[in-house]
Amino acid sequence: MRSILVLNGPNLNMLGIREPAVYGTMTLGDIESRVRACASRLGVKVDFDQSNHEGELIDRIHAAHGSFDGILINPGALTHYSYALRDAISSVGLPTVEVHLSNIHKRESFRHVSVIAPVAIGQIAGFGAIGYELGLQALVDHLES
Amino acid sequence: MRSILVLNGPNLNMLGIREPAVYGTMTLGDIESRVRACASRLGVKVDFDQSNHEGELIDRIHAAHGSFDGILINPGALTHYSYALRDAISSVGLPTVEVHLSNIHKRESFRHVSVIAPVAIGQIAGFGAIGYELGLQALVDHLES
Amino acid sequence: MRSILVLNGPNLNMLGIREPAVYGTMTLGDIESRVRACASRLGVKVDFDQSNHEGELIDRIHAAHGSFDGILINPGALTHYSYALRDAISSVGLPTVEVHLSNIHKRESFRHVSVIAPVAIGQIAGFGAIGYELGLQALVDHLES
Amino acid sequence: MRSILVLNGPNLNMLGIREPAVYGTMTLGDIESRVRACASRLGVKVDFDQSNHEGELIDRIHAAHGSFDGILINPGALTHYSYALRDAISSVGLPTVEVHLSNIHKRESFRHVSVIAPVAIGQIAGFGAIGYELGLQALVDHLES
Amino acid sequence: MRSILVLNGPNLNMLGIREPAVYGTMTLGDIESRVRACASRLGVKVDFDQSNHEGELIDRIHAAHGSFDGILINPGALTHYSYALRDAISSVGLPTVEVHLSNIHKRESFRHVSVIAPVAIGQIAGFGAIGYELGLQALVDHLES
Amino acid sequence: MRSILVLNGPNLNMLGIREPAVYGTMTLGDIESRVRACASRLGVKVDFDQSNHEGELIDRIHAAHGSFDGILINPGALTHYSYALRDAISSVGLPTVEVHLSNIHKRESFRHVSVIAPVAIGQIAGFGAIGYELGLQALVDHLES
Amino acid sequence: MRSILVLNGPNLNMLGIREPAVYGTMTLGDIESRVRACASRLGVKVDFDQSNHEGELIDRIHAAHGSFDGILINPGALTHYSYALRDAISSVGLPTVEVHLSNIHKRESFRHVSVIAPVAIGQIAGFGAIGYELGLQALVDHLES
Amino acid sequence: MRSILVLNGPNLNMLGIREPAVYGTMTLGDIESRVRACASRLGVKVDFDQSNHEGELIDRIHAAHGSFDGILINPGALTHYSYALRDAISSVGLPTVEVHLSNIHKRESFRHVSVIAPVAIGQIAGFGAIGYELGLQALVDHLES
Amino acid sequence: MRSILVLNGPNLNMLGIREPAVYGTMTLGDIESRVRACASRLGVKVDFDQSNHEGELIDRIHAAHGSFDGILINPGALTHYSYALRDAISSVGLPTVEVHLSNIHKRESFRHVSVIAPVAIGQIAGFGAIGYELGLQALVDHLES
Amino acid sequence: MRSILVLNGPNLNMLGIREPAVYGTMTLGDIESRVRACASRLGVKVDFDQSNHEGELIDRIHAAHGSFDGILINPGALTHYSYALRDAISSVGLPTVEVHLSNIHKRESFRHVSVIAPVAIGQIAGFGAIGYELGLQALVDHLES
Amino acid sequence: MRSILVLNGPNLNMLGIREPAVYGTMTLGDIESRVRACASRLGVKVDFDQSNHEGELIDRIHAAHGSFDGILINPGALTHYSYALRDAISSVGLPTVEVHLSNIHKRESFRHVSVIAPVAIGQIAGFGAIGYELGLQALVDHLES
Amino acid sequence: MRSILVLNGPNLNMLGIREPAVYGTMTLGDIESRVRACASRLGVKVDFDQSNHEGELIDRIHAAHGSFDGILINPGALTHYSYALRDAISSVGLPTVEVHLSNIHKRESFRHVSVIAPVAIGQIAGFGAIGYELGLQALVDHLES
Repeated sequence: MRSILVLNGPNLNMLGIREPAVYGTMTLGDIESRVRACASRLGVKVDFDQSNHEGELIDRIHAAHGSFDGILINPGALTHYSYALRDAISSVGLPTVEVHLSNIHKRESFRHVSVIAPVAIGQIAGFGAIGYELGLQALVDHLES
Repeated sequence: MRSILVLNGPNLNMLGIREPAVYGTMTLGDIESRVRACASRLGVKVDFDQSNHEGELIDRIHAAHGSFDGILINPGALTHYSYALRDAISSVGLPTVEVHLSNIHKRESFRHVSVIAPVAIGQIAGFGAIGYELGLQALVDHLES
Repeated sequence: MRSILVLNGPNLNMLGIREPAVYGTMTLGDIESRVRACASRLGVKVDFDQSNHEGELIDRIHAAHGSFDGILINPGALTHYSYALRDAISSVGLPTVEVHLSNIHKRESFRHVSVIAPVAIGQIAGFGAIGYELGLQALVDHLES
Repeated sequence: MRSILVLNGPNLNMLGIREPAVYGTMTLGDIESRVRACASRLGVKVDFDQSNHEGELIDRIHAAHGSFDGILINPGALTHYSYALRDAISSVGLPTVEVHLSNIHKRESFRHVSVIAPVAIGQIAGFGAIGYELGLQALVDHLES
Repeated sequence: MRSILVLNGPNLNMLGIREPAVYGTMTLGDIESRVRACASRLGVKVDFDQSNHEGELIDRIHAAHGSFDGILINPGALTHYSYALRDAISSVGLPTVEVHLSNIHKRESFRHVSVIAPVAIGQIAGFGAIGYELGLQALVDHLES
Repeated sequence: MRSILVLNGPNLNMLGIREPAVYGTMTLGDIESRVRACASRLGVKVDFDQSNHEGELIDRIHAAHGSFDGILINPGALTHYSYALRDAISSVGLPTVEVHLSNIHKRESFRHVSVIAPVAIGQIAGFGAIGYELGLQALVDHLES
Repeated sequence: MRSILVLNGPNLNMLGIREPAVYGTMTLGDIESRVRACASRLGVKVDFDQSNHEGELIDRIHAAHGSFDGILINPGALTHYSYALRDAISSVGLPTVEVHLSNIHKRESFRHVSVIAPVAIGQIAGFGAIGYELGLQALVDHLES
Repeated sequence: MRSILVLNGPNLNMLGIREPAVYGTMTLGDIESRVRACASRLGVKVDFDQSNHEGELIDRIHAAHGSFDGILINPGALTHYSYALRDAISSVGLPTVEVHLSNIHKRESFRHVSVIAPVAIGQIAGFGAIGYELGLQALVDHLES
Repeated sequence: MRSILVLNGPNLNMLGIREPAVYGTMTLGDIESRVRACASRLGVKVDFDQSNHEGELIDRIHAAHGSFDGILINPGALTHYSYALRDAISSVGLPTVEVHLSNIHKRESFRHVSVIAPVAIGQIAGFGAIGYELGLQALVDHLES
Repeated sequence: MRSILVLNGPNLNMLGIREPAVYGTMTLGDIESRVRACASRLGVKVDFDQSNHEGELIDRIHAAHGSFDGILINPGALTHYSYALRDAISSVGLPTVEVHLSNIHKRESFRHVSVIAPVAIGQIAGFGAIGYELGLQALVDHLES
Repeated sequence: MRSILVLNGPNLNMLGIREPAVYGTMTLGDIESRVRACASRLGVKVDFDQSNHEGELIDRIHAAHGSFDGILINPGALTHYSYALRDAISSVGLPTVEVHLSNIHKRESFRHVSVIAPVAIGQIAGFGAIGYELGLQALVDHLES
Repeated sequence: MRSILVLNGPNLNMLGIREPAVYGTMTLGDIESRVRACASRLGVKVDFDQSNHEGELIDRIHAAHGSFDGILINPGALTHYSYALRDAISSVGLPTVEVHLSNIHKRESFRHVSVIAPVAIGQIAGFGAIGYELGLQALVDHLES
């Protein structure tokens, strides 16, 4: 049975509180439930984690090496400047899918650039919580092909 | 029953011929079949179209006004410069999802910019043909919410 | 009797439907009526055309060579990137006036640049439908001087 | 009866002397006569003023608050850098039309940018003296609608 | 007894009239009263001045040389381009504090740059009228240390 | 009784050691004493904290939600690139004042940009330790109005 | 016998009419005759085509797949922005030579960039009609080596 | 007998007071004496003027039309942004020499650009007061040739 | 006996696993052994540390103040954006040498910029593990001179 | 009989040794033979030269003044920065054709810019040794017309 | 008796031949005569040299160390890119004046930048041959003060 | 026995004379002695050369082909613009190490870019003369591995 690490970056623990006009009223717990349900439909195991610390996210990605088959990541604002996170992903060599709740390409211009994208299979942005489910499908599809 | 226009831009008719290393061996016909199967699972009607002409794509989007509930579009290279296509989408006001076969954010730098993104709900890039199915789900989910 | 070609670019056929907050509720037909009335007051003949196709606009401009005395053009979004349209205008050498319904200089930054301007007599932007009438006057005034 | 302030910026007093190849042989007095004739045809009152001093133009705009219904301004070279003039216009909140004798969009690149445009209804450029008459019509049309 | 010159640049005389959503309903007279009260609490003398003319502001700064101990300045829009004002401040060598009613760093990008900052002790922005009082304290504190 | 979180970013624990020519000889403990004295004069409660870890600062801001009325922050060098810190501030929606010991607008050009500013009420920079007291006043004034 | 598609982009049908100072008095028909004569000397077959429509040029390139051995293209102004044309060339994988009548590298700066170059063997610019003959030789030489 | 207008821009009245490390201890009066002596050696008449007001400098240049044969100008900080001053010089068409006390090309980068240079015969920078004498010689030499 | 802190930034713990084509098969443990051997040859004491957390690296640098004579640092990807790390180094004032395994100046353009360089004695890049030994020599040489 | 100077810049003497993947296995001697054969077919005389010294190339161009009818130049890497070489070409006023073995427009971005182009008739790039023969034909054709 | 090295860069030997519209009909020999006459009036000795080789100019500047009191240099096109020439001047530490025949600040934009200026006392541009005489005066004046 | 070419670019012959504050008091002869001593310790042969001429440096590198095993180069200011030098290095294909006396990454911004780096193994900067010894070790280490 395949196992996927679902990793959430800074401020995603505030979902439902933080700017609902932009991010909706769903909490990270709600997303976790949907992701778990979706994982079980797809027949994969998931770990679901969040941290506001770049260093912990990097540690977590390193630890995934050897124990997970792929990573689904919403790096939050680290998307736009954390070259260290990017190097962490390329150092473990696991297939990685990047997901964003909002459509980063229509917001402030600094959010149009993802330094993570060059080390990811693909990117899904703008669909809120369902983006995680789509990302999980895409990752599983990628692992199977 | 909801109806969705699936629109493909320049060169997508060459899929399977064109740079398989980048775009895979699947043809546009294969994608159409998968999209139709997916649409029928989701209970929506789809029209599937392609043109190499910016003007025809715009005409097609205008004609969608009043007869479709949403648009799933892979604008091909027009993604990066066709402000006319962007205005066409905003002129009809239909919910639109942008899909790309390759991960445009890890290719040449001119492909990192989408002039379509500011008028789309969201973007899916890098997952090949399955990206269309994910996009259809996202669009249907959006229409239902 | 002088004759003027009035040419409209992509999406202008959607006027009245498209973003009325930006472009007003008047349709392109309404504008045509006003332009015709104005032309008749000024004692000139007008042809009034629209296309969503860059290529057709270029064909139309070429055809104007020898049969029209000037061009009044609203190139829509092509204003910002169609160097081919610009070359078409300079290739026929007819006096050309550029008109925009909205004040392009106060909208998104990509709309501040007109690649057409260097081959036009002048530009009128921001006054809605009346801008066509002002442009017609300016063009006739130019032809008479 | 509506009243309009027509304001001219630096160096426009030199019209007819200054680079006739670019600006024509008409003097500012000639333009004033044409504007007055046009105003009387349109049934509005005009004040016609010129200054080479940014500060005086700002004072004049402030004084217009409460006594004029709109402003027609040719800011001369201040168009391209006077954020103070721009703030003056937005501080009085009067509808303002921007006019330029030459087509600033085809001259040196520093003249392509108007810092005034974001606080103006619209812009007319390139038609010489007749541009003032067109601007007056546009402003009156705006006030009436 | 120390004496401070409080200088206000273009359009600040319009406070209370000008864009209250951005600048509040307080007038420049109200600010002057608060500044005078604050100065008397701090045991310093103040002169309070405003001009819409860059040249007069420069003259005023020159005249401060020898008769004032410091300058509190809100240069208005001149903040962003008046290198002449900047040179005036550095020519008299008086300690200068820069104050802005609005938070210039969150408005249009041209307002993010202050050409005055390199010749000022510090900058206070975004707190409305109270910013003047804070600036006065900072300046007095600086003169005493 | 209102309560304010005073938060200090990386390297501020080194104050008095670190580059005294730029930052003065006062330690962070000295600043804390002054801030506490000032808070007691203003009738507010303060918590005073410092961390070199972006993640801990974010955790601390999240925890402030519901228990503090406002934030006074000196983000140190994170000011210039931590979009995650910026999102933390906007996620809790507490009024926030940004303070800097040195005048960041006259130092290296990378320090002229604050990615925090767009989510802060205002900014105070260049006055050393007294800047914290001014910031506290500004914040309390803001909470009272 | 090898066969070459010679393709001409927008406005090249206006040769001889369009700006003779820049492009010479030779018509596209004259060029076709010279190209045909040259092809016959080189022992290759040519098709000679022109269109003002980006979409038709793309269709034409697709159709060349399987029936031509190489492409000689003068993309006109599309050279500078048509990423769709570029993708068309790379999708068919035919050796392509880019030719320009004028020396695009000494004209307006927007003409210095060719988005077609990265998918072409080489480029010839500035020699007028003879450039087509040189390009044909280069292409035939390439096919033979 | 030829007559030359020597014009000084903002802050030059502060010479000798202002930053002597950069500009020396000589006053503007001292420079005037040297210029007058030099003029008398060269057999020309000079008027020597200074203003901190852009508008007055422009008025002064306009007034020179018809009464002076050339202009020697040190525009101070206006050098770097006053397009109005530049237009004033080109409007009167008098031969103009630009002089700067300091070597503007080795100071802050904003001082490397002169918007005046395109309308001046030449520029002399970095030699202090003697630069005026050199400029006067150059101007007289130009008028004689 | 002199003592040197050798500090390694994010992802360097993955050496030997991470992209061997770029970084070689040597692990961080192997490098530590070589550095210790080299230190003993040079007669200095070394501490060898690694962290994926910017905050911990900063804490470690602060703690070095008073207990170490110099720092040899490979900041990993933090090299390119961590102004906080840079400020940490300048706050303790210890001589610092920057080392990189790969030649950062020939990789992606974002890796060409080091924000650490302005506070370091020098930089060694591109020689793999031996770069640490060279850096240690350089640092010891610097301390001795 | 016309005579042409064929000039080769730095490193072209290394042809056949230098990066054969980019430049082919042909030596400069081989190219010289082909150029001489081609010249004799065209009825012109050629001198064929190479230097790694910018100064010698300039001297050679100066010496061509009066003794040659045109120049065919491959400036090697000097193409991208030698404004002195450019000025040498414009100083002698001889018709000049620029040739490059590789397609500089598809290599590193610094090679996309030719500072020589503005003083050349035209440019041929990407066809290897045959480019010299094409360039010679173009130059002779130009001299004859 | 003071001695001055007058150094001329690439292409200046072509004066009188090279673009007389830009540089005049005077030859470098004519300039030398004028410079010698001027030097004798000023009571200084001059050496007058020219080279098209950057390396020779550098050698010449090095050799001036210890045998000349100052340098008057017209670096020709090397002005805009020869950092090696700049370092040569700063390495010998001799007072240096930069002179240009044409007004480089009104020509192509690449000529607006002097990489030499930061190591020169001052710059004289635009006055043709007389610029050398003015530069000599300025240098002698500098040496005497 | 391996043999290494040590090559020094423009102005390095002036070491000890040239700006000792930046480059130290050691002469190039002193460096040569240290390099020879170091080479003998490492068991390699060295040639030590310097030239102020880009062309001679290129000739020297070409001549190294076949007779040397590697190059240690300090290109001086040519580092920042000599694409010809870069092509020379890649044309001979010898392992090359780049060394700089000063830390180019903390000086003027034009010195932050090395056009040589993309063709070198690695770079050492900022350690003065010892940098040559470190570079030699790195090069020998590279040749042995």
